[in-house]
Amino acid sequence: MAQKLNKAEREQAVNDLAQSGWSVVDGRDAIQKQFKFKSFVRAFGWMSSVAIVAEKMNHHPEWSNVYSTVNVVLTTHDADGLSELDIKLARKMDTLAQ
Amino acid sequence: MAQKLNKAEREQAVNDLAQSGWSVVDGRDAIQKQFKFKSFVRAFGWMSSVAIVAEKMNHHPEWSNVYSTVNVVLTTHDADGLSELDIKLARKMDTLAQ
Repeated sequence: MAQKLNKAEREQAVNDLAQSGWSVVDGRDAIQKQFKFKSFVRAFGWMSSVAIVAEKMNHHPEWSNVYSTVNVVLTTHDADGLSELDIKLARKMDTLAQ
Repeated sequence: MAQKLNKAEREQAVNDLAQSGWSVVDGRDAIQKQFKFKSFVRAFGWMSSVAIVAEKMNHHPEWSNVYSTVNVVLTTHDADGLSELDIKLARKMDTLAQ
């Protein structure tokens, strides 16, 4: 099972991810980012790529889609907060959106 | 452009869709339904089918996914409320979830 990040690990990871637009969710030990694409097809294409990665990791996002925008929240329910899995999935999402 | 349903059409459509679990969103001229699946793969597989239909209709849902659950809201922004497109997409979503 994924372990919750300790304070130092969490600070480092959150600071790193802030560079690409991730932020901490108010009132939750979770991170969020809004991804914008040129079209619905681009947005859903990206979601499809992420879905395959997420299933392979057995770690899934909370996400919503309206046309070409996707809002993502990542947290690890089993760890009751952020774990290495969230950081890994966030980075993968950024890479797939490039 | 899709036309907003008139009062009688809207009542008929909303009543019909209520049979399969659709309801009116509080404070919006929109309908909503929660779809539950056996797994993330089933949920995202259904979303992928719907995405293709939605793009073909040029009418897209507002939807969010957490693991095996998908929450959908349908409305027609151009018509400032429910149109025939929403009713058609709702029925298609039900069919694809069977």
